[in-house]
Amino acid sequence: MTYRAPLADIGGALKYGVALAPALDEGLFGDLTMDVVEAVLAQAGRFAGEVLAPLNRVGDRYGTTFKDGTVTTAPGWKEAYQAWRKGGWNGLVAPSEWGGQGLPQVLNAACVEMWNAAAMAFAVGPLVGMAAVDAFVAYGSEPLKRAYLGKLVSGEWTATMQLTEPQAGSDVGALRTRAERAADGTYRIFGQKIFITYGEHDLTDNIVHFVLARLPDAPPGTRGISLFLVPKFLLAADGAPGARNDLRAHSIEHKLGIHGSPTCTMIYGDHGGATGFLIGEENAGMACMFTMMNRARLAVGLQGVGIAERATQQALAYARERRQGRSAGMPAAASTPIIVHPDVKRMLLSMRALTQAARVICYSAAMALDRAERSKEKAARDAAQARAALLTPLAKAFATDIGIEVASLGVQVHGGMGYIEETGAAQLFRDARIAAIYEGTNGIQAIDLVTRKLPFAGGRAVEAYLGELNRIVEAVNATNDPALGWTGVRLNEAVGSLARATRWLLVHLDKNANEALAGASPYLRLLGVASGGCLLAQQALAALRQSADAAPGMALARFFAENFSVQAGALERTIVEGAPGVIGADAALSA
Amino acid sequence: MTYRAPLADIGGALKYGVALAPALDEGLFGDLTMDVVEAVLAQAGRFAGEVLAPLNRVGDRYGTTFKDGTVTTAPGWKEAYQAWRKGGWNGLVAPSEWGGQGLPQVLNAACVEMWNAAAMAFAVGPLVGMAAVDAFVAYGSEPLKRAYLGKLVSGEWTATMQLTEPQAGSDVGALRTRAERAADGTYRIFGQKIFITYGEHDLTDNIVHFVLARLPDAPPGTRGISLFLVPKFLLAADGAPGARNDLRAHSIEHKLGIHGSPTCTMIYGDHGGATGFLIGEENAGMACMFTMMNRARLAVGLQGVGIAERATQQALAYARERRQGRSAGMPAAASTPIIVHPDVKRMLLSMRALTQAARVICYSAAMALDRAERSKEKAARDAAQARAALLTPLAKAFATDIGIEVASLGVQVHGGMGYIEETGAAQLFRDARIAAIYEGTNGIQAIDLVTRKLPFAGGRAVEAYLGELNRIVEAVNATNDPALGWTGVRLNEAVGSLARATRWLLVHLDKNANEALAGASPYLRLLGVASGGCLLAQQALAALRQSADAAPGMALARFFAENFSVQAGALERTIVEGAPGVIGADAALSA
Repeated sequence: MTYRAPLADIGGALKYGVALAPALDEGLFGDLTMDVVEAVLAQAGRFAGEVLAPLNRVGDRYGTTFKDGTVTTAPGWKEAYQAWRKGGWNGLVAPSEWGGQGLPQVLNAACVEMWNAAAMAFAVGPLVGMAAVDAFVAYGSEPLKRAYLGKLVSGEWTATMQLTEPQAGSDVGALRTRAERAADGTYRIFGQKIFITYGEHDLTDNIVHFVLARLPDAPPGTRGISLFLVPKFLLAADGAPGARNDLRAHSIEHKLGIHGSPTCTMIYGDHGGATGFLIGEENAGMACMFTMMNRARLAVGLQGVGIAERATQQALAYARERRQGRSAGMPAAASTPIIVHPDVKRMLLSMRALTQAARVICYSAAMALDRAERSKEKAARDAAQARAALLTPLAKAFATDIGIEVASLGVQVHGGMGYIEETGAAQLFRDARIAAIYEGTNGIQAIDLVTRKLPFAGGRAVEAYLGELNRIVEAVNATNDPALGWTGVRLNEAVGSLARATRWLLVHLDKNANEALAGASPYLRLLGVASGGCLLAQQALAALRQSADAAPGMALARFFAENFSVQAGALERTIVEGAPGVIGADAALSA
Repeated sequence: MTYRAPLADIGGALKYGVALAPALDEGLFGDLTMDVVEAVLAQAGRFAGEVLAPLNRVGDRYGTTFKDGTVTTAPGWKEAYQAWRKGGWNGLVAPSEWGGQGLPQVLNAACVEMWNAAAMAFAVGPLVGMAAVDAFVAYGSEPLKRAYLGKLVSGEWTATMQLTEPQAGSDVGALRTRAERAADGTYRIFGQKIFITYGEHDLTDNIVHFVLARLPDAPPGTRGISLFLVPKFLLAADGAPGARNDLRAHSIEHKLGIHGSPTCTMIYGDHGGATGFLIGEENAGMACMFTMMNRARLAVGLQGVGIAERATQQALAYARERRQGRSAGMPAAASTPIIVHPDVKRMLLSMRALTQAARVICYSAAMALDRAERSKEKAARDAAQARAALLTPLAKAFATDIGIEVASLGVQVHGGMGYIEETGAAQLFRDARIAAIYEGTNGIQAIDLVTRKLPFAGGRAVEAYLGELNRIVEAVNATNDPALGWTGVRLNEAVGSLARATRWLLVHLDKNANEALAGASPYLRLLGVASGGCLLAQQALAALRQSADAAPGMALARFFAENFSVQAGALERTIVEGAPGVIGADAALSA
């Protein structure tokens, strides 16, 4: 099973879906041109397809092995990692002063999608590392950065994020890992972390752990958490890895999917405490953590897009080749490729439409990050920051939900062959499942969206977004293109439902938070089907205006509106009418 | 991970959901009483929970091994199979003249659900065998029955169904396995079959294969298919297994799930042809096959219910135990079981409501089979037969779709632990996936529903069903019980949408079949959300009338209506407006 980077779909999403071309024209990215963007994408696509994609099944079959505290990755992974980092891919968005290339977040988003489509179990390691680098750049001290940051940007060393403990998952404030102040200004770390992605491996000669821990005199809950940099090997005087630090991997997990990625339980302080270095201020670790988490959440959304893309490619290829049954009028002995059957066509269109919608949503969030960093006006930066904050939980949860849905459809298109592991469709279904869980479950994303992002700045961020969606609806209705079918009607209703549900939630958040929380997940889906429909339509209309080949985009926008955006009204009702039926249903859960 | 047979939910579905009590009172099942029904259920539940459930993970881990043409099942499976068949469970519904117990189909349905909840990879073997026995009873010759049927009813020997070949999956008419007439009235079988469930195993000393093949002079397509009984061992004069027949398992598959079930490629005729015995008439094998398939399809639907039930039990147990976060007003250091959080409650309610809805739909189909067999009046038997035919594709596809959805929610409720194989939630997610594929993919079920079941008898079967759903809606609205929230409104709309979509499909089937086919899968879902909502409400109201504890049922009916039946309007639009957007979307699939 091969993977071919979908450069046309990615390019369409960038150019027409999230308006990268006008942003380049206005100089948001200095002298960066579309030619360079396209060259980077083509090169990334080649690497993903030729080097990483063949590792995907190898990693699934071999997994990783754990012996005496060391982890061995699957055959070929070490070489691929070295080739990947030498290609400069790890530092694509990192500041040039630390060896990065300073390219747009939205360009990196497209690349992250491709790495994950090619081999998610490979790409999840660097994904976490890039997020940690973000927090390190923002909060790390200069001496610490000089010692570690360059090597983390280049990928010579990898980084981990360590939040979770057995009793502290979604509730990170419940963590107990202990940090004691040492006389030399460093800290001694004691405790256990679980579910640590690439906590131990053989790809690099050092691993830099970013560990949340609690000082002895810290206040309880999230206001008493500090972030520490804890290297596997302390640095010698020349900056090279020296003495082994007092930490170790205790075991790795036997998981449903992403077998190529070692998921470790880590132990700190068997022998007097691991040496850690404070990042930011004491007890202010949550702010650093949120910087890491937000970047990682968007990247996890892109994993959903990547898996969905690969599942779609494989299902399309199979459906073009596999012959079963006849279309009307064919002779009895002949048989037709199954792609011709309307029900199979429906599955494939669902896969493509959901994938492209999730892609444009994720790229929109990345573009907002770019504008938040680079816009000249503070007002524009603030608005973009609020937009990125609003779209991040949507990108994470909607895209990973559809990653699972699309991978499941991919199995279904293959029929019985889809259930056989050798086919590869089943691996995508297994791999996709984790993305809805880690970096904050999708339920946590929905709660974040409703309780933090909606009320932010008196609801102005979501109001501004609704205004933008309404302008897209107006443009669709003004076009009145018959190729769009019922798109205008459905999108108008969907954005109306979204607006009403938003207002209802904002009112009920104050009156009865539980009623708002009961509708959080349906609201996130509502935001997804409304946003996805509008963004696909916007992309199709922009392509049309540029005289590009708009037919595929028009067909996808229409299919999405008529099959997914159409669900908005039901979701609105579930949100505004359904809360008492959730809150008051204890009798049904107490058998 | 344990399984406790949900006797209260099963009993509620039987007594109040599908009106078993009145059927017993009217003497449909002779002198069978509810006490006996409940005793059988309790005994089956005990066996499922105590003997089969502990095998589930063993089968998943060990799988089956294949060596030199023989298959070895996982440790303990052989003993469990012998205990199960000695309990008389294999012949529960079989005719008493062949050693069966002649009990109701609907009672067997409840038992099949429990076997599959306990260990789906175990239960799938007998499931296929029971379906084959049905066809054998209906079409087999007396001498053949005397030789084989008693041992198949008792489970001393198992049976397989052999349809699929590499080029003939959904399109069974494309099969090529060859049957040549022999001088002695038997046949010689040559060919290859794939995906054969329990095609070879070590549980019994003979295996009886029911094989579809084609005579040399047969017409092409499905009108040229014949059904043969082909035993692994031919019978000696005393009726015991004698000479080995010319067939063998060539290999077993490496599958996503149900690892405990051997899925075999079978080879016939290496040495002059396997001896086969004709079932029914030459070239009339499709009728026999449909008898097998229909029974098997309902049973596969019950696999969906069983997996959903087990996933729900496990998620509920975890959510009551796992503590994370706080509810409003709790002190900062305390933490609450996650079942208290509204978003988790929503997931658990979705799991319970979908499971119970699928259960009542499947039991309804089984009850219709009982009435089709046993009603005194021919008109009643015919109407029940048509009802069973209408509900079978719904039971198969809706229940297996929700099996996957519920198993996926089960993983999600567990958070990170759900992705770890030891937890067991991931196995259910893997196991559930096959049920939407085998015995006719769910797309094939939707096509069967729309193209065969709707137009049957001029649409009278579906009209009668719509009338019944409308009477339930009237009863709900007459009750006007505030505990049902918006149930009456939502069900009224849902049945209205179903009626309009049905009429639209019946018209378009004649005008443009492809447009009807494009809406087949959404129509099946629409039938599911309307039926599920109505049947749950009917069950709740009947329980209320009988002064049983109706609160859990009322809460589930309400939740289903407000969260699932509410989707009916969107599905209607997708069906009646969406076809051109599917048929005309080739541009979006041709990249």
